[in-house]
Amino acid sequence: MLTDTMIKEIPQLKVHGRTTACRAPLTLFWTAGGFECNVTGSELWVELEVTFSMYEPWLSYTVNGSWVGRQMLQKGRYWLPLFRGMSPQSVKNVRIFKDLQAMSDDGSSYIHVHALRHDGQFFPVADKPVKIEFIGDSITSGEGLFGARKEQDWIPMFFSAVKSYAHQTAEKLDAEYRVFSQSGWGVHNAWDNNTRGALPGYYKEICSLMPGDENERLGGNQPHDFAGWQPDFVVVSLGTNDAASFDQPAWTDERTGERHKMHREPDGTYRQEDISKFQRAVKAFLALIRTCNPKARIVWCYGMLGLDLQLWLCEAVLAYARETGDDRVSYLQLPDTTAESVGSRAHPGELCHQKAAQVLAGYLSKFL
Amino acid sequence: MLTDTMIKEIPQLKVHGRTTACRAPLTLFWTAGGFECNVTGSELWVELEVTFSMYEPWLSYTVNGSWVGRQMLQKGRYWLPLFRGMSPQSVKNVRIFKDLQAMSDDGSSYIHVHALRHDGQFFPVADKPVKIEFIGDSITSGEGLFGARKEQDWIPMFFSAVKSYAHQTAEKLDAEYRVFSQSGWGVHNAWDNNTRGALPGYYKEICSLMPGDENERLGGNQPHDFAGWQPDFVVVSLGTNDAASFDQPAWTDERTGERHKMHREPDGTYRQEDISKFQRAVKAFLALIRTCNPKARIVWCYGMLGLDLQLWLCEAVLAYARETGDDRVSYLQLPDTTAESVGSRAHPGELCHQKAAQVLAGYLSKFL
Amino acid sequence: MLTDTMIKEIPQLKVHGRTTACRAPLTLFWTAGGFECNVTGSELWVELEVTFSMYEPWLSYTVNGSWVGRQMLQKGRYWLPLFRGMSPQSVKNVRIFKDLQAMSDDGSSYIHVHALRHDGQFFPVADKPVKIEFIGDSITSGEGLFGARKEQDWIPMFFSAVKSYAHQTAEKLDAEYRVFSQSGWGVHNAWDNNTRGALPGYYKEICSLMPGDENERLGGNQPHDFAGWQPDFVVVSLGTNDAASFDQPAWTDERTGERHKMHREPDGTYRQEDISKFQRAVKAFLALIRTCNPKARIVWCYGMLGLDLQLWLCEAVLAYARETGDDRVSYLQLPDTTAESVGSRAHPGELCHQKAAQVLAGYLSKFL
Amino acid sequence: MLTDTMIKEIPQLKVHGRTTACRAPLTLFWTAGGFECNVTGSELWVELEVTFSMYEPWLSYTVNGSWVGRQMLQKGRYWLPLFRGMSPQSVKNVRIFKDLQAMSDDGSSYIHVHALRHDGQFFPVADKPVKIEFIGDSITSGEGLFGARKEQDWIPMFFSAVKSYAHQTAEKLDAEYRVFSQSGWGVHNAWDNNTRGALPGYYKEICSLMPGDENERLGGNQPHDFAGWQPDFVVVSLGTNDAASFDQPAWTDERTGERHKMHREPDGTYRQEDISKFQRAVKAFLALIRTCNPKARIVWCYGMLGLDLQLWLCEAVLAYARETGDDRVSYLQLPDTTAESVGSRAHPGELCHQKAAQVLAGYLSKFL
Repeated sequence: MLTDTMIKEIPQLKVHGRTTACRAPLTLFWTAGGFECNVTGSELWVELEVTFSMYEPWLSYTVNGSWVGRQMLQKGRYWLPLFRGMSPQSVKNVRIFKDLQAMSDDGSSYIHVHALRHDGQFFPVADKPVKIEFIGDSITSGEGLFGARKEQDWIPMFFSAVKSYAHQTAEKLDAEYRVFSQSGWGVHNAWDNNTRGALPGYYKEICSLMPGDENERLGGNQPHDFAGWQPDFVVVSLGTNDAASFDQPAWTDERTGERHKMHREPDGTYRQEDISKFQRAVKAFLALIRTCNPKARIVWCYGMLGLDLQLWLCEAVLAYARETGDDRVSYLQLPDTTAESVGSRAHPGELCHQKAAQVLAGYLSKFL
Repeated sequence: MLTDTMIKEIPQLKVHGRTTACRAPLTLFWTAGGFECNVTGSELWVELEVTFSMYEPWLSYTVNGSWVGRQMLQKGRYWLPLFRGMSPQSVKNVRIFKDLQAMSDDGSSYIHVHALRHDGQFFPVADKPVKIEFIGDSITSGEGLFGARKEQDWIPMFFSAVKSYAHQTAEKLDAEYRVFSQSGWGVHNAWDNNTRGALPGYYKEICSLMPGDENERLGGNQPHDFAGWQPDFVVVSLGTNDAASFDQPAWTDERTGERHKMHREPDGTYRQEDISKFQRAVKAFLALIRTCNPKARIVWCYGMLGLDLQLWLCEAVLAYARETGDDRVSYLQLPDTTAESVGSRAHPGELCHQKAAQVLAGYLSKFL
Repeated sequence: MLTDTMIKEIPQLKVHGRTTACRAPLTLFWTAGGFECNVTGSELWVELEVTFSMYEPWLSYTVNGSWVGRQMLQKGRYWLPLFRGMSPQSVKNVRIFKDLQAMSDDGSSYIHVHALRHDGQFFPVADKPVKIEFIGDSITSGEGLFGARKEQDWIPMFFSAVKSYAHQTAEKLDAEYRVFSQSGWGVHNAWDNNTRGALPGYYKEICSLMPGDENERLGGNQPHDFAGWQPDFVVVSLGTNDAASFDQPAWTDERTGERHKMHREPDGTYRQEDISKFQRAVKAFLALIRTCNPKARIVWCYGMLGLDLQLWLCEAVLAYARETGDDRVSYLQLPDTTAESVGSRAHPGELCHQKAAQVLAGYLSKFL
Repeated sequence: MLTDTMIKEIPQLKVHGRTTACRAPLTLFWTAGGFECNVTGSELWVELEVTFSMYEPWLSYTVNGSWVGRQMLQKGRYWLPLFRGMSPQSVKNVRIFKDLQAMSDDGSSYIHVHALRHDGQFFPVADKPVKIEFIGDSITSGEGLFGARKEQDWIPMFFSAVKSYAHQTAEKLDAEYRVFSQSGWGVHNAWDNNTRGALPGYYKEICSLMPGDENERLGGNQPHDFAGWQPDFVVVSLGTNDAASFDQPAWTDERTGERHKMHREPDGTYRQEDISKFQRAVKAFLALIRTCNPKARIVWCYGMLGLDLQLWLCEAVLAYARETGDDRVSYLQLPDTTAESVGSRAHPGELCHQKAAQVLAGYLSKFL
């Protein structure tokens, strides 16, 4: 009764998130990467192949838009049950989410989707009227959305795609969305002054921040096909780690011996020269995003973990707009984390992400 | 590095929910049945043995009180990972919940817990200051707390222990709790007039509503050891299905040929004779609960799916109190399901359960 | 430009609340008594005549349904401004509310409305589709809805018509409403065992609980014209003071020397004989309400200040229904006052009344 | 029993809001201007003298911090009752608020306070630990906080001191506050391009935006004594009307014949030359505020009615900080008005002001 069908043989299936053209298997790289299908039948299973060295991926899924399951994934290739015993005739919408970001610290952490086991038929998944790309750091990776407030371990269990402001904003606007994010990273450097932890440098490839041969083999380092999915909005939430780096020791590039550090002046203010580096990075990234997404409105968001660099960020956004004549770029402050809305790892919790989604969805809807 | 330890060899582990004395394996019968442990180490797995014919059990678990995972369980005996990569020194509190009620329609649907795999040490789990037993129907079984509003399939996926008013009330009061509930059942008969679907008849055994040899073998039909866990409160939420049965066709006992039905009069009112049966059942159950729980305050709750039998219920509760002189029994109305708070299967949703928990916890706290 | 028009010469004006047929002046007796008019012009004043000995009336008013003013009224006859400078052409809806209950302790406390000063024209006020009568005690009189939590003075300033659950329920259902209530009173006796403080004895007259010659002169002791305003719902919120009287000393009738007291048994339970008196009063009042309002659904509400008499109340309501065959009577529990929702004088505050209005409006809407 | 005491003879009385040194009478100029007293006795009246030509002032007052009354004031000198019948021994805190902004369109609109009538004694009002000055436009004047959503008349009835974000922020921080605001005005020009409608030009006097001889006589044009009340925070909420002026026709100065207008370029963007004027005004105002308030943290807020000028505002704030080395100035975005939170006159309503107060109080508290 149950049939196994390879993913590549299900053209009705809709893939979410940046990935390669390969469907045998389909590789999930990013937070909220996954697929969606409309299927009849009483039962559905998915065949996964999961690899990792240090950081295991987690998976969430929805049935008819309602979140029903979330689990840590074990290594290996195996079948996972998604639903059982449902009315065979009705069409069920099922969507799979990678609940973990692309883990740049673990070059073998991937989910691959091989096949579906089912007793029904597949139907097309309609495109949504709005498309949004979210670019960000740990906040956009949903870090801190699971786990008790006291938790401090940096582990996959505490990341979430589905609870994050990105997913919730998309739900409110009935939008498709993709996430391009990395915890600890920034627009000019990472929280620890590591200049390789700057997201713009990886924007043009599918997922080039994943290190190693496996990513090369999987095609993560290949150019991303921007033409294939042009967003209406690009939401950038970067700057929090750039701000943090002013208070961290210098980072030394082990390969070259070069050191890098963002400095404060003796009176505590940011050193103008370093601020200028940050601002140049903001402007350059905006230009890059514009090149790749000619028609999108770009919204730079900031504030869920403090406002430290806000004025310099705004100055850079405005300078970019003025210098280029690009008038489809703007800035939006998102609600700060409070004692009431904090999650685990001192990150914004579910309440903070909910508030952020309300603010952001309200703002974006003005342009629709 | 990882060690497998049998459950029976972990005296520090705390078992939740009615079950037998057997720990090799520990069998989970009821909604929210499970265990809780305090453990050091970086990693934890649980070895389950899952059986079912029609209705697969689901499992949820919390780490340090925060809900992190929920999944459909497959048949067989296997290891399930619970956490990885945590700080080895710190003590983690982990708690497992059976997310599905005892399934009286599937005599082979059980979760058995054999062992834990870990690299730490176990520490005792302190008793909580308050104990509550919840007795009820589908509402108390958390039916409708998962799934889209349009869902109508009666499947395990849509049941929840953790989102229900029972769990939330216990959390608010820092209480231990147990659930004794069955979807569709009542105090005198089930929604379809089936007189075997009356919960009081099963109250004195561990879990005698599960049919068949397997339950006999597992000990579910053995007398329950009330002395071993005396609750401060017994909360009874029954009556909704008794009310429904007045509008359902008669039920015929296939074994005896006898028919049973609760009737309305031609003018639509409840037939007094049948109402009296219901009221006698209420009074008898109160007396039974009192016998088994001499010191508990008993609160009969009603109203999350309408108030149809409220006045007769109150009359019966008062009659019981007056006839027996028992002054530790009372009645509490819980918030009705609204268009805003409804879940799947036309049952109370998460918002309705949250409101109910607020009302109930506020009420119970007056007696603490 | 401004014209003074006597109330009796404005047939388009709609009077709210039980009152006499007199319109020269219109006398406001009860909480939320007042009038409503639709008027053009830029300016509006009202001519009041206010009398009192001890307890001064307060006045609230709305413009286009939005509450804009509230003030203590001074003695005398004078003009009060209601709006100025509005667009002359538009029709403004203005409604006046007596913010104070009929004060049975002050036989001279009244508001009389003589005239309106205006520069526009009056237009009819449409009837609302639903009518509700609220009968109750201090809760229904809105006691405690103004003032700081620490306030304990029993003064008019702390009463409110507009914030109360009665007004809010009516707003949610787009209903007309009237209030018949008295702080401290009950269905069988007042909080202090005074048997004259039982509301049913005054139900058939317009406002016969106001003592003295002035009330006689004003016509408050005349029979109420029930036929003129037949409610769809009668909501009775009594019992809280009856419950309190069990813990108060006896009351002695100064006129007859008779004493009255509701007793508890030595074990703390209510004395059955006294409970029976309470229950007979409940049944008799239901019968009286039914006689006066043949087509109304009667809902007895209870619980905003505890549930002490709930079971006996329900038993009496059911007994009434059974004995009379009246199937349009029911019981509804309202949300209890909590530390978060309490107002002044240890009474339910605005939040508690809001929750009560949600529950009650939701319940009543099922019958519409 | 009741005594009349002139305000000037009550040294314990605390005056709120910018005003002159005159206490015979005390003149209230600005929104939330008023006084506060701690007084025993059973009764309290205030003697007001009210003048106006077009726009009548409104008055609100609190008793023990709870808002109990609000009314339109009539012309003339008269006594207004504030409380009656309270426990004589207890100390009551009473505070009077001018609910209307200084009305620059009506040079005779004032409230003067002459005396208090009472039967108790006055006690000192303690200073609050934090002081805040709010500078703004209609939003800070609380326009739109009363009245139905459909209202469009620009009249005093729809302004509120007590519901505004300024009052609520002060309450949350237990702060004293003053309001310096004018509806329709901006930092560089008013909504209609009128350059006289720029608040900075009036900042150094007590209330010099009120026109005419009466203001001169009252001392409103006298220099303000900044030393007498140094705020911890100056919150500036200006820019909304500056933004609006880009889409309004030119304004012609009737006295000089000069015209002024802020322009958009043919492509819809703001003309750089005009934006520069706005930015210079922002910087100059910051410098002026700093001069007058050497130790205050200055927070420029924006966003309750859109974000049009945000980037230019931020650029100017940053430029000011950089050029002067002033590091106690920052920018905060406040919640935008939504369909759910809008009030009358298309202005932010109570819900929007509540959210703004949460965000602002949370932000300011970080500096305490």
